[in-house]
Amino acid sequence: MKIVIVGGVAGGATAAARIRRLDEQAQIIVFERSGYVSYANCGLPYYIGDVITDPEALTLQTPESFFKRFRVTMKVHHEVTALHPEKKTVSVKNLTTGEVFEESYDKLILSPGAKPTQPKLPGIDMEKVFTLRTVEDTFRLKKYIETKKPTSAVLAGGGFIGLELAENLKDLGIDVTIVQRPKQLMNPFDADMASFIHNEMRKHGVKLLLGHTVEGFEEKGETIRVLLKDEQPLHADLVALAIGVTPDTHLAKEAGLQLGIKDSIVVNDRMETSIPDIYAAGDAVMVKHYVTGQDALISLAGPANKQGRIIADNICGGDSHYLGSQGSSVIKVFDLTAATTGINETNARKAGLDVDTVILSPMNHAGYYPGGKVMTMKVVFEKNTYRLLGAQIVGYEGVDKRIDVLSTAIHANLKATSLQDLDLAYAPPYSSAKDPVNMAGFMIDNIANGVLKQWHLSDLTSVLQDSNATLIDVRTISEYEHSHIEGFKNIPVDELRDHLSEIEKDKPVYVICQSGLRSYIATRILSQNGYDAYNFAGGFRFYEAVMHDRSLVEKETACGMDL
Amino acid sequence: MKIVIVGGVAGGATAAARIRRLDEQAQIIVFERSGYVSYANCGLPYYIGDVITDPEALTLQTPESFFKRFRVTMKVHHEVTALHPEKKTVSVKNLTTGEVFEESYDKLILSPGAKPTQPKLPGIDMEKVFTLRTVEDTFRLKKYIETKKPTSAVLAGGGFIGLELAENLKDLGIDVTIVQRPKQLMNPFDADMASFIHNEMRKHGVKLLLGHTVEGFEEKGETIRVLLKDEQPLHADLVALAIGVTPDTHLAKEAGLQLGIKDSIVVNDRMETSIPDIYAAGDAVMVKHYVTGQDALISLAGPANKQGRIIADNICGGDSHYLGSQGSSVIKVFDLTAATTGINETNARKAGLDVDTVILSPMNHAGYYPGGKVMTMKVVFEKNTYRLLGAQIVGYEGVDKRIDVLSTAIHANLKATSLQDLDLAYAPPYSSAKDPVNMAGFMIDNIANGVLKQWHLSDLTSVLQDSNATLIDVRTISEYEHSHIEGFKNIPVDELRDHLSEIEKDKPVYVICQSGLRSYIATRILSQNGYDAYNFAGGFRFYEAVMHDRSLVEKETACGMDL
Repeated sequence: MKIVIVGGVAGGATAAARIRRLDEQAQIIVFERSGYVSYANCGLPYYIGDVITDPEALTLQTPESFFKRFRVTMKVHHEVTALHPEKKTVSVKNLTTGEVFEESYDKLILSPGAKPTQPKLPGIDMEKVFTLRTVEDTFRLKKYIETKKPTSAVLAGGGFIGLELAENLKDLGIDVTIVQRPKQLMNPFDADMASFIHNEMRKHGVKLLLGHTVEGFEEKGETIRVLLKDEQPLHADLVALAIGVTPDTHLAKEAGLQLGIKDSIVVNDRMETSIPDIYAAGDAVMVKHYVTGQDALISLAGPANKQGRIIADNICGGDSHYLGSQGSSVIKVFDLTAATTGINETNARKAGLDVDTVILSPMNHAGYYPGGKVMTMKVVFEKNTYRLLGAQIVGYEGVDKRIDVLSTAIHANLKATSLQDLDLAYAPPYSSAKDPVNMAGFMIDNIANGVLKQWHLSDLTSVLQDSNATLIDVRTISEYEHSHIEGFKNIPVDELRDHLSEIEKDKPVYVICQSGLRSYIATRILSQNGYDAYNFAGGFRFYEAVMHDRSLVEKETACGMDL
Repeated sequence: MKIVIVGGVAGGATAAARIRRLDEQAQIIVFERSGYVSYANCGLPYYIGDVITDPEALTLQTPESFFKRFRVTMKVHHEVTALHPEKKTVSVKNLTTGEVFEESYDKLILSPGAKPTQPKLPGIDMEKVFTLRTVEDTFRLKKYIETKKPTSAVLAGGGFIGLELAENLKDLGIDVTIVQRPKQLMNPFDADMASFIHNEMRKHGVKLLLGHTVEGFEEKGETIRVLLKDEQPLHADLVALAIGVTPDTHLAKEAGLQLGIKDSIVVNDRMETSIPDIYAAGDAVMVKHYVTGQDALISLAGPANKQGRIIADNICGGDSHYLGSQGSSVIKVFDLTAATTGINETNARKAGLDVDTVILSPMNHAGYYPGGKVMTMKVVFEKNTYRLLGAQIVGYEGVDKRIDVLSTAIHANLKATSLQDLDLAYAPPYSSAKDPVNMAGFMIDNIANGVLKQWHLSDLTSVLQDSNATLIDVRTISEYEHSHIEGFKNIPVDELRDHLSEIEKDKPVYVICQSGLRSYIATRILSQNGYDAYNFAGGFRFYEAVMHDRSLVEKETACGMDL
């Protein structure tokens, strides 16, 4: 059996190695357009910032090492230029010699990945407008930084790569501005949770221009002018595009394979394309979202690797199935860790789901053990069914742990109320006897049992305007005096029972505290005394972080940011 | 409704607070024998070692703060001396005044906890023989250390408290010896995994005397002689008992409540005892093990808190059920983190289960990102059904994360093969595209599909004695020359295909490498060339760690350890 693989990174490299482990006799040829195979895509930004200093660390395998161990022929600098399913061959161009040849296959695996999205803007092809997708891109940017010593950079786009690159450039002492049309970075997160990311970026000196539109690029001496819509341009020594990625599927398209969203390759759960004996994996394929069941594009390394393995199994006589992508992801944003799994509230509502959320601020470990830090956790679930839909967490240590526990719970179709039952490992340096995930479960269980009624940040305007509502802040006097929402009256929770007579019985009571715990206790006291009481999800600290960010997003302009 | 609670720590305090949140009118009285309520049991060893320096940090709540917030009457220094279910009262002794009185209840909650196991040994009641269960115990030991400045300590017993205390004493510059009859510390772990804990303890200068029996204690001037069976005694300035705990259930026993293992209180899944209107929670109750379904004693804070909450729900008209304990736990052992969930291999075999295991040594995060460290993971599953039974991990960062993912998978009844499908969050600082838990799943999937056949450390003797077996070490020449198992021939994996003619076809081939990955590839090459090949679970690094420990356990004697 002869297997040809287009693309030698994540999915392609995994498939090649796995096929060899399953079939010692198969002939396996991988064509890779770049000069590198099986490289550490996700490590590239960290090479820019000298966090990873050895370039060889990025290239996990070489064609030589791959051949020695797996007898896989990895042909780098070879671009597949056409697929010929009818005769089961591909056309290949040797980019070094220019030679063009045809290679036959019994099974073909497409793992072409995705390419940086490049909107048709004037000047986008300039040499100083960088992207960061391949090892070559990375070396080129690195060399530019080392030789030209830029002191300022504009990044267009703020997704994973944009944020990681911003941090790494900043760590090199380069002034960084992120500009993009959407008003929030990191769209896997809801806008409220993204505020914590924005605040962290600003805290570390990254300038944000959110809701601003790039219209083009112009060289001006040694610097580049980044043209903005209705604003004066930005100037920088270097520009990087990180707007997102687009499936790199022109070969599949030309060969007549069925395509989906953004021309991604349609596959079934065995990773088979619409044409027999052609499989596809990675950023180029359309997957089912595990939570919504809808078609989705999810460009992440984990799914790509799993898909490569599944293809290998199926080619070698097995019957493996890809169950769908859940979009679990995590990113380091300076000192912060931000992680998500499943779908966020915004997308859940877009999908027509009737959702509710809990927002909590637990410590990563026992409060009495030194070094504990607060995280902000948002869990999204379906009303009535309590189906767990997704979660987002921003914080420090222990964020990645809780998102993986929640990912596993979603994968296993646990109900949101079941999070309270998870038997998680506790010792003071690692967690609390009631783990943050258990706490989320307790809160959701309280909602299910009618013990907890909430109001959300999105209700704030209507609550403030409701002349029939009583608004109470149950923090201490000093907390309240330090900062509070205008319109809220201060009654510390421990004194609430003594002040019930001051609260009108027939009005709904909206309660807030710092994190949501004391106000929950307050709503319980109120409810049992006949009040219709609602607890503010997330507490004042959540309100404050989001409002702080929103006011800055509106204020930040290109004006004054110029060199 | 009047609720009386016996014991104001974990389960009792949780129940009290939750009842108040559910019922503003209930009368709630807690009797606590010690002077402290709702204290941080698990933090006590860290107060000894000055990791936690503020004693108030240990006492999360005071009777005053509890009353202010929850209107719960917490009576400390009050010991309940008898239960009278027939008249629904308890006898209480005010330990300060000596006054004895009766208190009536509508509902009674028993949360008496457990007491340190104290075998009837001569001298065990001496003042210098410490235990560490209550805040008072802790202050007493702390004061002794501060005033007497002991330079040596003998700890009898090596469970959670013993190990945490050993580390904290050592950090104070005190010479520590742990002595106990069992040949391994931390019995939730299999002996092989415990070896990593032993090695870490020794690396940090803690002396271990495992398999040695303490027969008594004698004062000798300022020091204590710890008498050992068939050996010369140890001498130390301080002795601590940490042999384990026993349910503190004499009240329940005298009142005729049904008792189970070690006189623990029998409860149903609503946490109701055998007598109406009496509930029990925490270390004093017998639970169902979530994995085996068998009765078990599991003394951990997480379950105690959950049970307290369930009792509150049920007393207040709800219907909450405790699903059983899974024994998830984690401990910091100097630089190491050791964690476990479910049952270990030893206990699974004792329970008559037909088990298999995989042992792997993944990095906590991408190898190319700085700071990555290797962990050792053992996953236990049932043969044929692939039911996930348990897991143990020792390593550094990220151990607690993976055990919680595995805990969640066990709770959700996921199959061991399904671990490969988990969609876990990946970025270089946090994980690998194939997370360690996924890797375990891949290995188990390979076993299920006949792609991986293993041999284990327990097979070593028979493998070495099998004159019909071929033994191959596929590491590099330099690794092999550095250290190897006598009898294994070195053929580096990348050269294996060229040396097949040297390996006899009709003999089973047992293969080893450093971590198990290269040897797996070697077994695949061999299998497909007609050999019956087996991969060594855990690799040479596992073999070396366990063997190093076992040889020391046999050598370590009291001789030479004397002052």
